[in-house]
Amino acid sequence: MKILIINPNSDHEMTGAIQKTADNFADGEFEALCISAPGAPEFIETYEDAVKAAPGMIQLVRENEDKYDAFIIACHCDPNLDVMKEITGKPVVGIGEASMKIASMLGHSFSVISSTYYSIPNKEALVRKYSLQEELASVKSPADNMKELSDKEKYLYTAKSAVEKDNAEVIVLGCAGMTGLDKLLQEELGVPVLDGVVCALILASGLSKYGVSTSKLRRYNAK
Amino acid sequence: MKILIINPNSDHEMTGAIQKTADNFADGEFEALCISAPGAPEFIETYEDAVKAAPGMIQLVRENEDKYDAFIIACHCDPNLDVMKEITGKPVVGIGEASMKIASMLGHSFSVISSTYYSIPNKEALVRKYSLQEELASVKSPADNMKELSDKEKYLYTAKSAVEKDNAEVIVLGCAGMTGLDKLLQEELGVPVLDGVVCALILASGLSKYGVSTSKLRRYNAK
Amino acid sequence: MKILIINPNSDHEMTGAIQKTADNFADGEFEALCISAPGAPEFIETYEDAVKAAPGMIQLVRENEDKYDAFIIACHCDPNLDVMKEITGKPVVGIGEASMKIASMLGHSFSVISSTYYSIPNKEALVRKYSLQEELASVKSPADNMKELSDKEKYLYTAKSAVEKDNAEVIVLGCAGMTGLDKLLQEELGVPVLDGVVCALILASGLSKYGVSTSKLRRYNAK
Amino acid sequence: MKILIINPNSDHEMTGAIQKTADNFADGEFEALCISAPGAPEFIETYEDAVKAAPGMIQLVRENEDKYDAFIIACHCDPNLDVMKEITGKPVVGIGEASMKIASMLGHSFSVISSTYYSIPNKEALVRKYSLQEELASVKSPADNMKELSDKEKYLYTAKSAVEKDNAEVIVLGCAGMTGLDKLLQEELGVPVLDGVVCALILASGLSKYGVSTSKLRRYNAK
Amino acid sequence: MKILIINPNSDHEMTGAIQKTADNFADGEFEALCISAPGAPEFIETYEDAVKAAPGMIQLVRENEDKYDAFIIACHCDPNLDVMKEITGKPVVGIGEASMKIASMLGHSFSVISSTYYSIPNKEALVRKYSLQEELASVKSPADNMKELSDKEKYLYTAKSAVEKDNAEVIVLGCAGMTGLDKLLQEELGVPVLDGVVCALILASGLSKYGVSTSKLRRYNAK
Amino acid sequence: MKILIINPNSDHEMTGAIQKTADNFADGEFEALCISAPGAPEFIETYEDAVKAAPGMIQLVRENEDKYDAFIIACHCDPNLDVMKEITGKPVVGIGEASMKIASMLGHSFSVISSTYYSIPNKEALVRKYSLQEELASVKSPADNMKELSDKEKYLYTAKSAVEKDNAEVIVLGCAGMTGLDKLLQEELGVPVLDGVVCALILASGLSKYGVSTSKLRRYNAK
Repeated sequence: MKILIINPNSDHEMTGAIQKTADNFADGEFEALCISAPGAPEFIETYEDAVKAAPGMIQLVRENEDKYDAFIIACHCDPNLDVMKEITGKPVVGIGEASMKIASMLGHSFSVISSTYYSIPNKEALVRKYSLQEELASVKSPADNMKELSDKEKYLYTAKSAVEKDNAEVIVLGCAGMTGLDKLLQEELGVPVLDGVVCALILASGLSKYGVSTSKLRRYNAK
Repeated sequence: MKILIINPNSDHEMTGAIQKTADNFADGEFEALCISAPGAPEFIETYEDAVKAAPGMIQLVRENEDKYDAFIIACHCDPNLDVMKEITGKPVVGIGEASMKIASMLGHSFSVISSTYYSIPNKEALVRKYSLQEELASVKSPADNMKELSDKEKYLYTAKSAVEKDNAEVIVLGCAGMTGLDKLLQEELGVPVLDGVVCALILASGLSKYGVSTSKLRRYNAK
Repeated sequence: MKILIINPNSDHEMTGAIQKTADNFADGEFEALCISAPGAPEFIETYEDAVKAAPGMIQLVRENEDKYDAFIIACHCDPNLDVMKEITGKPVVGIGEASMKIASMLGHSFSVISSTYYSIPNKEALVRKYSLQEELASVKSPADNMKELSDKEKYLYTAKSAVEKDNAEVIVLGCAGMTGLDKLLQEELGVPVLDGVVCALILASGLSKYGVSTSKLRRYNAK
Repeated sequence: MKILIINPNSDHEMTGAIQKTADNFADGEFEALCISAPGAPEFIETYEDAVKAAPGMIQLVRENEDKYDAFIIACHCDPNLDVMKEITGKPVVGIGEASMKIASMLGHSFSVISSTYYSIPNKEALVRKYSLQEELASVKSPADNMKELSDKEKYLYTAKSAVEKDNAEVIVLGCAGMTGLDKLLQEELGVPVLDGVVCALILASGLSKYGVSTSKLRRYNAK
Repeated sequence: MKILIINPNSDHEMTGAIQKTADNFADGEFEALCISAPGAPEFIETYEDAVKAAPGMIQLVRENEDKYDAFIIACHCDPNLDVMKEITGKPVVGIGEASMKIASMLGHSFSVISSTYYSIPNKEALVRKYSLQEELASVKSPADNMKELSDKEKYLYTAKSAVEKDNAEVIVLGCAGMTGLDKLLQEELGVPVLDGVVCALILASGLSKYGVSTSKLRRYNAK
Repeated sequence: MKILIINPNSDHEMTGAIQKTADNFADGEFEALCISAPGAPEFIETYEDAVKAAPGMIQLVRENEDKYDAFIIACHCDPNLDVMKEITGKPVVGIGEASMKIASMLGHSFSVISSTYYSIPNKEALVRKYSLQEELASVKSPADNMKELSDKEKYLYTAKSAVEKDNAEVIVLGCAGMTGLDKLLQEELGVPVLDGVVCALILASGLSKYGVSTSKLRRYNAK
């Protein structure tokens, strides 16, 4: 089984980190390759960044439909996920949808740790799209006074606050760039911490093995 | 006041019909120009069509930001509306959002008349996005046996069924291509029938005159 | 076009302030007259105040149905709005409904600034009636320690707190008595601030020009 | 204990029927008197009827606050219930709220049998006000072809259809005028059938005996 | 009329306190007996405790179906309420459902005072089950620094905080073990305070007197 | 990796069918054993059946916690799932939750095919528990006139009706007893058909491999 993980941005360091996470999880049982979408913007922070990433993402899926068994969109705001589900018969999994739906199975409520204050409403809009408001404790980004801290510390303290103040029982890492921090944080926090890349690999590999994919009846019919 | 109406598709007949509707409503009180987005697909039926329309829509807004006071997206599925709101400081109104929110003020519940069976779930997803599920009676498209009928008859019978079977108290024309049918249907049905283009003109001209626009605090901040 | 703005209370200063706001916005393009409902109570603070205002409001609409093209109810708790929509074929717009639905189009979430702590639950009940809970950041009234401040300062600080603590991206002035403060607050806060009187004028003038009004099918049928 | 049942309309036959139901249920354990509100309209079909009934209802509560232990509003659309809760320290129970909340405790979902097609949306709005949408199977009125039938037959067939087609597990009689039909219908249908007058008596007598009443903290504070 | 109150735990002191509350409320008008379920666990804190209590609860209902007119489950998390409603034709009332639904009739929003921090999510899950999220202000347990205080003080301060910080207009005692504290707290707080045992007695005695019980159509059909 | 699949009923044929499905899916990559809970009832049709199954299910988990890496509850109404999640540190997956949450990722809306008319409300209650109402098209059981048909035909026609009349884009097999029918139905219907056993295996094996499990913070803390 071969899974193509599409990084909608052009940050090679992030692509490398996702690849490492995927290799660790796949552990030789399946192949997973992470590549940047051609022409991708440096980051996916805005709606315009998502628009800019779309053509390259579509191209990647089209060119690789025969070579891969499933696709993963490795940005936690699930950019262009609907169009990805529409243009291919193979399973497509967004790391946002995968991680938040799995989080809803592991505890009473979850918090999403967001990298920036600006992306909080977009995450909240995503939570509404997936009808997960009842299970959401909060979407949280590091406080202003954490700027000097390391990523690990910054996200750890933010997650700690989500657990203690918002009663989050599960933590979702809200950016593909946080990949690899899950176990470090889980150990400190004592609650499950989910890396969207791994959650998406669980579902993408499982769906592919099962032989089910997106329904082509109406919403995701390419017409 | 000058309002730019962006037709996300390249159907010149539709652009012309929208222009006519706009001229009729503006009645000399403000200017409204409808143009197709450069590079637009023939129709907006799929998520991919929406992706293809995006670059031209962004270009139009960027090139015209100084020349126009407000922008309207004239496709009832409000394609790329979030990115449009993000990239400009001028008001941007989608004909889907405008018509459905106005519909919720005119009666207990409304039905959206959709041109095709395939677009029903996308409309339902839009209704959820705008939290209008409680006010929605149904989304309906013409039945298979109506194929031979004229557009007017097809949408009239579909709307009649929405009124009689789903108890819709207001009808929303669910496609910019239906522009101009509102008064014909309203006369026959005896309930308000809303053309999204007019609804968007009401709001776009009003917001511009008022001097308010999209909040740039977080969700629509271009960063 | 002539719009009658009904002030459900008997506060002449407020009637005057609303008239001034209406004149400023209308700017000669249409006529708008604000008058107090005959027999109106001094304030609309309680459900009983709303009951007391009803007969005069009904009388005003009945006596002026032929002379005006649309009616506005200029109290932010939209008292007796359902009966107003029922008894006339002309459009009726409540400043609460108009301002909150427009707010939902301008940002991720909005806060309503309420004049008193006691009216907060009534506003929340109104938000539920209009199914706007998902878009509501908060309903807020000035803190106890603000009693000595001017109205402008009081509502500015309250709105500032809504923006900073509740992440409101849009501010709705929650009382007709705040009319005229919108631009002052907007300038200080940097987010859209909506005066319900203006929002209702946008919709009432637009609906009248469009020739649509309340559906008489069932809910607002006078039988 | 003495309970005053306020019939918001002036239909003496209905007042008599409610009195009979109340006497049967009270069975000597408490006193219950049903009277029409002074100046009440003949029926409560429209929002305007509710407005017309309000002054007499308020007068009745004010004049009888010291003489009675609790008040019941005996019209299933709960007209003016908020203002009634506001103006007295004694418990006030609406037959709509009481019957629908009790219905939600007796089965998976309930249907409300409405006397006319026109009142269906008003009932649905009431269901939303009480957040009972999840428990509602349907609101149903007799079909057009039932006009010649007796009340009992008409409502029985309507309720039967609610049970069989909408899967209602509990039936709520949606008009005080149906009082007395509960046991007849229950016997035929085999599911619980609730008379709002009895449901309100259960709660009004219970609350009075318990010594709790409407909270005066904010929403129902008379200021 | 005879009502059997089932205490799902084996705490005799609690059984005695419930009996006292029941005797006070019944006041000779009906008989109410509280007994522990045979084989009941010491407390109902966990899902496993609820499972352990089930066989004894079922046995009690089965053995007493002919002797009692209604049953009450006297634990505020309503353990095994669905199965109780299923196995008997007599009314069964949970003190959680009864108190929270009555609370929703007495004010804009209510808070549930929970004995421990651990039971908060279970209460929230119960609130969702009964679709009462819109009416919930908060679920609150005593803060850590209250451990030394008496029960009365602990719950009073917690309820006070719910009123002042969460704007609760009604307080629900969230554990049968708090029975008897209602009037003490109500006097101090000035808002209605509900003891679930009394609320359940109001409904159980009322339903029994009325002659209605759980619908056996589908959800609670014993098959 | 070893996964224990607990069949809460004592139907050996069903246990065998589940084992076969598990073996087919596991395909040698992990071990999966399906066994009946000791003392299990013949079917899980009622709430009492679920209660009866609980002690054996708890015993199985306790006895096997060290020997297995994850547990699956193989009854589509997810009986006793909360207590299972509470008593073990290993992942526990219900086939109802797994299949319905995966279904929500594969199409606009899903229908659950239920074996009997009586279990429909229980399924609907489960859908509410998991906040999946927005994604639910319908819960459907075979019509009365299908009694003579084979299981395959019965469920195929029911699913066909869900697709054609309720616009379901994904079908969920609503009983472990339907295991093995997924591919047969999928081929005929042209939409994804999900077997809960496989969906649960995807998640249970994935979670175990990932090293995350139920949060023990509050809701599922065994205290």
